[in-house]
Amino acid sequence: MKLVTFQENNEEKVGVLKNDSVYTLSKLVELYNVSNNESVLMEDNMLSVIKNNDRDIAKVWDWAQSDFGQVSAAESSKNEVKISAPISNPGKVVCVGNNYMDHCIEQNVEPPKKPMIFSKWPSCIIANGEEIKLPKDSEQVDYEAELAVIIGKGGKNISEEDALDHVFGYTIINDVSARDIQFEDVQWVRGKSYDTFAPLGPVIVTKDEIEDPHNLDIKLEVNGKALQDSNTKNLIFKIPNIISYLSKGFTFEAGDIIATGTPHGVGVFRDPQVFLQSGDTCKIEIESIGTLENKVK
Amino acid sequence: MKLVTFQENNEEKVGVLKNDSVYTLSKLVELYNVSNNESVLMEDNMLSVIKNNDRDIAKVWDWAQSDFGQVSAAESSKNEVKISAPISNPGKVVCVGNNYMDHCIEQNVEPPKKPMIFSKWPSCIIANGEEIKLPKDSEQVDYEAELAVIIGKGGKNISEEDALDHVFGYTIINDVSARDIQFEDVQWVRGKSYDTFAPLGPVIVTKDEIEDPHNLDIKLEVNGKALQDSNTKNLIFKIPNIISYLSKGFTFEAGDIIATGTPHGVGVFRDPQVFLQSGDTCKIEIESIGTLENKVK
Repeated sequence: MKLVTFQENNEEKVGVLKNDSVYTLSKLVELYNVSNNESVLMEDNMLSVIKNNDRDIAKVWDWAQSDFGQVSAAESSKNEVKISAPISNPGKVVCVGNNYMDHCIEQNVEPPKKPMIFSKWPSCIIANGEEIKLPKDSEQVDYEAELAVIIGKGGKNISEEDALDHVFGYTIINDVSARDIQFEDVQWVRGKSYDTFAPLGPVIVTKDEIEDPHNLDIKLEVNGKALQDSNTKNLIFKIPNIISYLSKGFTFEAGDIIATGTPHGVGVFRDPQVFLQSGDTCKIEIESIGTLENKVK
Repeated sequence: MKLVTFQENNEEKVGVLKNDSVYTLSKLVELYNVSNNESVLMEDNMLSVIKNNDRDIAKVWDWAQSDFGQVSAAESSKNEVKISAPISNPGKVVCVGNNYMDHCIEQNVEPPKKPMIFSKWPSCIIANGEEIKLPKDSEQVDYEAELAVIIGKGGKNISEEDALDHVFGYTIINDVSARDIQFEDVQWVRGKSYDTFAPLGPVIVTKDEIEDPHNLDIKLEVNGKALQDSNTKNLIFKIPNIISYLSKGFTFEAGDIIATGTPHGVGVFRDPQVFLQSGDTCKIEIESIGTLENKVK
């Protein structure tokens, strides 16, 4: 299932994306409940869907797909709604650095012996199609294409074996980074958390639709020119390992986002260096998930 | 006004603390509305109080204080309610490092030329009286007494002159830190965000009650022995400067927490070093705010 958050009559709704249509989840549930004399909860907020309702919505969506005629009242054209970031207020955005072997080689650094962890503040999340705004005090704003994991069931001390049970789904994140600020500050969070520095989405693909998250092509283009091109099989620390490692220290909560790291080809380590300029378009594509495209201003 | 979050019949409520009594804010508002034929909104959540209602609740509290007899229906004994952390789900916890001159001297580092910024994940916040839990993979868990600023009105590009208009109030935070993890990771967030590593509260004192946030004694004791003893006048970067500096890059949101830094006397830079041990009690006192006390397990 491809889930989106979108605006309808100035209200935030959760929708299911199918081809060029968005189906309002709360309406699907209403139609399902009437047709089947059930009482599945209607959730209008992605965080509560993630927390409470994943099996129920799968059931509802299976039913909807059996005959789209019965849910036409829930259908909008994708082009007629404004799709927001799928989650705008996660409890935490956990980022893994230097997690592709090819990215370590381009930096001439040893691959890390354990996951290298940093954070972005959630206030920098923006939607597909919104503008990445260049801050006045940086000359070196860079892109980073990353597979993002959305935590479903929270927990602590999660074993590697159980880790994928705690994943709700996957999306795309652009870990935009002001390199001059990031390196000058030493602690990376400020240079990675300027407003608009986390384009996210547009969809969360539920994990049942991703056969193997460690075998997805991941590409980034700036103005149509391919600058990153790799595959998640090159991740040094795999998703179960990251979740298990981190959950030894802290509790994961539903909706937490893990940005799993970026492959080689980032601007700061190119020769010559490439930094985002006003007017650029940054487009990330991850196989089976979709594309995340943002202009730079 | 001293605001607390507390549990009543398994529900989270906001209360006003006065001596040994907690007045349930929603009940105060209800009594006020009936008596005065007004329609002040009843807020039961600290984040919405901070977002929506600070002037209104001040009005209600002024009225309540004029005759406590009229609000006895809203009164509970402080000892009969469970006080939680005042905010458990802020958008971000922004921390300022090396922000006391005395703390720079003990580390033998130059005072920073600009605020040194890092983060803690909100999932590590605990209440006064809850236990700081020593993680298995650290041998060096340290304490840090800090004045915490609670942002009221959000905003970006806030001038130093306007910065205090964006402050809702103040509280106490213990920036508990696993030094071995913090320094080994280089990026500090993981070693500073283990579960229970952010004791917070117990009260938020609204800013009208703090004449000068830059002239408050700040002390920390472990097992009754004074280990930190300074005054917020020793802050290198003052609160308006920190808010203005950071808001050039990102948007502050209501409920965001700024931990302003710790004075000298932390365990890792003592000779001999002092680290928290199971059974220890860590008590922070900040003038005009109160005390925050947590056992270590």
